[in-house]
Amino acid sequence: MKIVVIGATGAVGKAVVEQLGQRHEIVTVGGTGGQYQVKFEDEASVRALFAKTGKVDAVVVAAGDLHFGPLHEMTPEQFRKGLNSKLMGQINVALIAQEYLNDGGSITLTSGIVGQQPIRFGANASAVNAAVEGFVLGAAIELQRGLRINVVSPTVLTESLDKYGPFFYGFESADARRVALAYSRSVEGAETGKTYKVW
Amino acid sequence: MKIVVIGATGAVGKAVVEQLGQRHEIVTVGGTGGQYQVKFEDEASVRALFAKTGKVDAVVVAAGDLHFGPLHEMTPEQFRKGLNSKLMGQINVALIAQEYLNDGGSITLTSGIVGQQPIRFGANASAVNAAVEGFVLGAAIELQRGLRINVVSPTVLTESLDKYGPFFYGFESADARRVALAYSRSVEGAETGKTYKVW
Repeated sequence: MKIVVIGATGAVGKAVVEQLGQRHEIVTVGGTGGQYQVKFEDEASVRALFAKTGKVDAVVVAAGDLHFGPLHEMTPEQFRKGLNSKLMGQINVALIAQEYLNDGGSITLTSGIVGQQPIRFGANASAVNAAVEGFVLGAAIELQRGLRINVVSPTVLTESLDKYGPFFYGFESADARRVALAYSRSVEGAETGKTYKVW
Repeated sequence: MKIVVIGATGAVGKAVVEQLGQRHEIVTVGGTGGQYQVKFEDEASVRALFAKTGKVDAVVVAAGDLHFGPLHEMTPEQFRKGLNSKLMGQINVALIAQEYLNDGGSITLTSGIVGQQPIRFGANASAVNAAVEGFVLGAAIELQRGLRINVVSPTVLTESLDKYGPFFYGFESADARRVALAYSRSVEGAETGKTYKVW
């Protein structure tokens, strides 16, 4: 399979490339690194990306920013950070990928444990992650030509504990390598409309 | 209690006003009707609304537009319709209401069955409704001064079958009057972080 991995230079993306790269041709995409670059918040940039990759068999997105901060001082503008990046970025890719996926191809998006298990400062993350999972539920029943869509919901990454650990006291972390298995299940399995929880 | 109902002129809103109006002072708010008007997609308009109502004990939102249409031709711009209206409209109200609610007050938002039970043409609705429920989960654990937040997830309204019936073949509908009971549970009960399903 020819697989596009968006967010290929991040901790999860690298592990996904390593896992799927053992058996498939990977096109690595990053914001600044990778074989191709994309600003996935921007529809035109996503279109330009797929014009370059051409037809593919799978698209994986492991990217997206969120706003973390206290609810009592959260502004609508801050809240839009997650909507514009982790939500609309992934939606842009999913909607446009429909035109570039070969029959039977797949889309795999990324949510996160906070969509179902809230943490302090995480209201934006809870909303955005839940939205991605909701989208996948809705999109799965409509995709044509045997296309599939799933989402991986990782817990906090062991590799990210330096940065995010204080938000996640008491949560078990998972190595990126273990999280990458869920992307393999989505891409190389046959299910659709699933949220693969790695927690 | 003094209760602001945004969307008071809609089918659900009217039933909520009738239910809660038996025991409380209601401030009705609509896009064009009601005692006050608001464009809840617009932060400044929401701020102007609360400046007029002053302190309140509960805020109910039963409003918001979504995009319904086939996934294979859905554009990011169409998808943003639901994000800007039903999602950010309610988020704007919830974030700003924190400053205007008396201690122990409540916020009640609206999602919908499609957040958990997908329908054809409903990918935007699934994402937005799930996002509202995710937000409530995240916000509930952070609200201060005993403030509470819940969300009501109605099935298709009996009163809306003329318009939405063809999207919902096989679904049981609920009368607005029955749906309004869930808002009463949220406002007059003691729970927080709950999704009240009326289905």
